[in-house]
Amino acid sequence: MLKVSLCASILAMLQSQLFTKTRREAPSDEVTRNATLLIRGGFINKEMAGVYSFLPLGLRVLRKIEDIIREEMDKIGGQEVFLSSLQNPETWKKTKRWADEDTDIWLKTKSKFGGEYGLAFTHEEPLALLMTGHISSYRDLPVYIYQFQTKFRDEKRPKSGILRGREFVMKDLYSFCRNEAQHKAFYEKAKQAYEAIFNRAGIGERTFITFASGGSFSKYSHEFQTLADSGEDTIYLDVKRRIAVNKEVMTAEVLSDLKIKEKDLVEKKAIEVGNIFSLGTRFSEAFGLLYLDEKGEKHPVVMGSYGIGPGRLMGTIVEVFADERGIVWPEPVAPFDCHLIEISGSGTSVKKRAERIAAKLERGASVLYDDRDLRAGEKFADADLIGIPYQVIVSEKGEAGKTVEVKQRATGETKIISEEALISQGTYRAFNS
Amino acid sequence: MLKVSLCASILAMLQSQLFTKTRREAPSDEVTRNATLLIRGGFINKEMAGVYSFLPLGLRVLRKIEDIIREEMDKIGGQEVFLSSLQNPETWKKTKRWADEDTDIWLKTKSKFGGEYGLAFTHEEPLALLMTGHISSYRDLPVYIYQFQTKFRDEKRPKSGILRGREFVMKDLYSFCRNEAQHKAFYEKAKQAYEAIFNRAGIGERTFITFASGGSFSKYSHEFQTLADSGEDTIYLDVKRRIAVNKEVMTAEVLSDLKIKEKDLVEKKAIEVGNIFSLGTRFSEAFGLLYLDEKGEKHPVVMGSYGIGPGRLMGTIVEVFADERGIVWPEPVAPFDCHLIEISGSGTSVKKRAERIAAKLERGASVLYDDRDLRAGEKFADADLIGIPYQVIVSEKGEAGKTVEVKQRATGETKIISEEALISQGTYRAFNS
Repeated sequence: MLKVSLCASILAMLQSQLFTKTRREAPSDEVTRNATLLIRGGFINKEMAGVYSFLPLGLRVLRKIEDIIREEMDKIGGQEVFLSSLQNPETWKKTKRWADEDTDIWLKTKSKFGGEYGLAFTHEEPLALLMTGHISSYRDLPVYIYQFQTKFRDEKRPKSGILRGREFVMKDLYSFCRNEAQHKAFYEKAKQAYEAIFNRAGIGERTFITFASGGSFSKYSHEFQTLADSGEDTIYLDVKRRIAVNKEVMTAEVLSDLKIKEKDLVEKKAIEVGNIFSLGTRFSEAFGLLYLDEKGEKHPVVMGSYGIGPGRLMGTIVEVFADERGIVWPEPVAPFDCHLIEISGSGTSVKKRAERIAAKLERGASVLYDDRDLRAGEKFADADLIGIPYQVIVSEKGEAGKTVEVKQRATGETKIISEEALISQGTYRAFNS
Repeated sequence: MLKVSLCASILAMLQSQLFTKTRREAPSDEVTRNATLLIRGGFINKEMAGVYSFLPLGLRVLRKIEDIIREEMDKIGGQEVFLSSLQNPETWKKTKRWADEDTDIWLKTKSKFGGEYGLAFTHEEPLALLMTGHISSYRDLPVYIYQFQTKFRDEKRPKSGILRGREFVMKDLYSFCRNEAQHKAFYEKAKQAYEAIFNRAGIGERTFITFASGGSFSKYSHEFQTLADSGEDTIYLDVKRRIAVNKEVMTAEVLSDLKIKEKDLVEKKAIEVGNIFSLGTRFSEAFGLLYLDEKGEKHPVVMGSYGIGPGRLMGTIVEVFADERGIVWPEPVAPFDCHLIEISGSGTSVKKRAERIAAKLERGASVLYDDRDLRAGEKFADADLIGIPYQVIVSEKGEAGKTVEVKQRATGETKIISEEALISQGTYRAFNS
């Protein structure tokens, strides 16, 4: 990311140098709030339906989300890898997931020198195959492996902005355990790690663990559903117990299994921000991924898979927090901590003061410094659109008393704060103390 | 990356927890030194010919290389983005690079809902198109944009390990300038940034700027060629002036242009680790990427492109430094700074000492701690194969005097060093002082 030197010891990002321009309008075919605002703010670029590029501001948010996820995956013992996108058909034929009749989501490509590849939409098969070279004994288990990687899916009508695309980054973790008991213990740890991720990303309160179909693998899987009017999914939520059931599996049997009473449930729209699956031994049996136990007996490895789309999480955050003026980022995922806005008019002393504040703030926080030669109204509109949590406005008003105006983006609340307090305490503490 | 807690305050990577196992043999169809050693050491996995996955040790090296490149790109003002892999045929038809007759390197894919995509092998076209929304005035120039991104190329016979694959990560930077003079000034800065990258990665001394074909864009492009007996390219090198000419363009005219005498040249095999191109206005004219100058006159933007493959750089480092025992990583790109090897036999006091040293070393350096219950010979062979710069051997020999044996992987030189000196000075300084 560009950081421009203001003087030898100072770094801050100058908005005049940021190549992206904000836009008044998004492309007319964008119907979602997330894509509309992210395109207008210069976070992403629409390449085609369901295909987006990430520009500097958007990449900063994506990386912050990825870093939160990575930390939580490392905490539960995850080891990071980076598997290939190109997939060997032979590998997927073993689990009957190659043919288009069995799996309609593939994008495939042919080499002109012979041979065909799939573009991976998930990685259970290649990873199970890979692990046959690294797991042979009970001593090698459990092991947890994850990656951040571009997935490809031939979605029918990708119209949800970055919530559902034909190409998107996914964090997928796969667990390899000796038996069901070991698997269940990790599955519970993964649930907690996912809760920690959504809490840190600012959507914890409105995100609920939701019972969903286990597919051919087990009775249930678990989704993490974030309440949002624009959500594609419908869930039945037990607010008190903080659990929900996806409409797709809602039956009397499920309610009885979960000991939920129908009268305690409310119907809600929600976005699926994560899902976790028990896979049993389907993949390990297909690839001969076996281990020898203490007695020398062979068993298939018990697997699980755990997905979060960092881009979808980013889009969900936009959907649930944005207001009529633009995006509102929670602090941990904001592209910058603080948006310093210089309203200098014709005066150079304001500019000098803004530069000095930028330099000092940068020591403890990341600062986007709007040094552009634009009218105040345009700068404020851009700042609200971009959605950095705090706006620090340096203008002639505060010259005499050495003060700045600080605006909290989420609430619109403003406070006059002394430069000294701002610099010594940082924006967040100076505003909230 | 996995970091396992030894006690509350200590983190180090335990080799017993690392899921990859070393192998005695690489797949029989691997002919290159880079793929053979990287597979045997557990750095990469071969998925298919020309398609490799990165495992934890390999991903650590790749990230270190990427971080070096990112720092140098940021220093010259680069702004990082992440463009899509899926490409719109219409965009590439504008520059006549879509049809297979014009560009034979494409891998393409069709959606079953209509429409075809290319899998990007480079990004001049989509980026030039994108920039039409962000460049309109001379004030918007110059601007430099880069990314790290998976590229796909339908290589005929991918047999060079991670030096040339059908899928690989690429750092590509694109420059956008007002005119030739501004472009040339940046082109020189980019050259210097590339030299800094190769120096930091440890191959600077044997890497030479090399005149190569400019294609349809300009008279010459510049390659960075690293001397290696296994290299695919042949260059003619002027050792004194530290410049070279690629055999492909070697003519009397070129020698005259560069004021090189044929008698000063030696023929060498080399690996191309980077290349930089002047693109002129070919792409900006195709997409109408124009700007208004101070007088209100329109001009096409002058472009350049600058590529480095981090995976190829990693493979090159293996090719040039490896010896008969395994890989030898230069310190700045090594997966860990130090390989702590516990030879405990039956004694627990050695193990306790090793744990204490691991904990203390980890404060200033990254440590892979071989805590596995294996024979000393196996541990030493694995350590030499993996190639971490310093091996610190903790055994019963040093119990009384509180010493360890430190071996420098590159030279094989060993020294007996006191625990105290090792911990207070760090492995590198303790060994080299």
